[in-house]
Amino acid sequence: MAGSKLAGSGKVILYIGGARSGKSRLAQARAESMAGELVYVATAEAGDAEMSARIARHRADRGASWRTIEAPLELPSTLKEHDSVGRILLIDCLTLWLSNLLLAGRDVPSARRALIDTLAHREATVILVTNEVGMGIVPDNELARRFRDEAGWLHQEVAAIADEVLLVAAGLALPLKND
Amino acid sequence: MAGSKLAGSGKVILYIGGARSGKSRLAQARAESMAGELVYVATAEAGDAEMSARIARHRADRGASWRTIEAPLELPSTLKEHDSVGRILLIDCLTLWLSNLLLAGRDVPSARRALIDTLAHREATVILVTNEVGMGIVPDNELARRFRDEAGWLHQEVAAIADEVLLVAAGLALPLKND
Amino acid sequence: MAGSKLAGSGKVILYIGGARSGKSRLAQARAESMAGELVYVATAEAGDAEMSARIARHRADRGASWRTIEAPLELPSTLKEHDSVGRILLIDCLTLWLSNLLLAGRDVPSARRALIDTLAHREATVILVTNEVGMGIVPDNELARRFRDEAGWLHQEVAAIADEVLLVAAGLALPLKND
Repeated sequence: MAGSKLAGSGKVILYIGGARSGKSRLAQARAESMAGELVYVATAEAGDAEMSARIARHRADRGASWRTIEAPLELPSTLKEHDSVGRILLIDCLTLWLSNLLLAGRDVPSARRALIDTLAHREATVILVTNEVGMGIVPDNELARRFRDEAGWLHQEVAAIADEVLLVAAGLALPLKND
Repeated sequence: MAGSKLAGSGKVILYIGGARSGKSRLAQARAESMAGELVYVATAEAGDAEMSARIARHRADRGASWRTIEAPLELPSTLKEHDSVGRILLIDCLTLWLSNLLLAGRDVPSARRALIDTLAHREATVILVTNEVGMGIVPDNELARRFRDEAGWLHQEVAAIADEVLLVAAGLALPLKND
Repeated sequence: MAGSKLAGSGKVILYIGGARSGKSRLAQARAESMAGELVYVATAEAGDAEMSARIARHRADRGASWRTIEAPLELPSTLKEHDSVGRILLIDCLTLWLSNLLLAGRDVPSARRALIDTLAHREATVILVTNEVGMGIVPDNELARRFRDEAGWLHQEVAAIADEVLLVAAGLALPLKND
């Protein structure tokens, strides 16, 4: 992994799990166990009042040790802008970013390449959270099938560049990769 | 885990897996490998003739070494009532109990707290079977989304108090936790 | 496992994972790392022009080291016909075969028994790829529920006879069984 071998660069760690599996909680606890400046990169969009309230509540829950930035669409450039040695960037979550890209009609393969390129050249430690969405029945809906395919390809590419990958179920993490 | 440290209390073991993954069979074989009085706690409701027949068939399959009790809704109090040192209680399954609670309009968070409290103070060994339901595409249906969320939260809380958690796929169990 | 103990018989290896999890790629790389004649057993049907083009593209991607045979329905007899010491048969994938059987109105339990019997008496190494489809919400659609049930039962039986079973997520394989 070229990206993992740059001198001085932080680790890339991927938490993949089902809905309400506790993956965000584990990723956040992992980040807080590390020495460094904590930056929460939210991919959720505050589209309506309910979502705004939920985002504000989560921000308050994380407490004062975290700075929060938003990147519903421009995740690669936002990461690049905030990248720096000694920082810990927690991206929560990749599948929401992908969903935002698809709904906005963006070019998903080029966004994916930009993300992988940014991760390969990072200086910060980057922890990513994402949903496993491919272990159910093939969805009837065409957009859902495309989302599922793109999520799978994105996960494979991020996992290939990651130093650590953890599968999460029932709030417990199982190592899939540990370079 | 306070619950696991009570002197004389049996273990709490959680089997989580997909549909038809063999989780019930593995949990039953595990129970039968232990020394103790076997009690099967069924959460299925014999709502119609087909279901009654299925339940009767499963009961016959388990054989005479098992006693069967039913707890479609009142799982915590039923557990408490049948709890005793040296017994092995197999609960099959948590997701069906959750589904019964939701359909009956019960207060799910307080039922969950009651279950966790009962598990924390058990004397028997308790083996629980449940379905992983969060690794597919977000369901269209609102009740299905709520069910999925509640299942995830329930699994995290039971797993946190459990001594052992096993993820089941293709009839094979992978340890997620072993205290 | 009687099948695994026949003198001179090759291994049976099962890769199970979600959609776009990288399971086919891992299974193919595994086959190519072995010494032997490579045979790709495709269960996809070239029903229309798009599918024909996709199949032709995949065949070209695999390159000249692979021979491709098609078995959308008659998988057990096709395997038997091409079975031979020193060959490596890669079946991609079981869930597509199951879907073809259901759509054609075939007797699934007897097809499953024929497959297991063929695997038990194989001489070649057989690598099978399949989709985990049981970790989402119960599908509304009755055929989808039947497919999900049959897939789970098929996976349990193949895994029971397999020497190795690997769970795949994000392009990474986790051993579930290694005899």
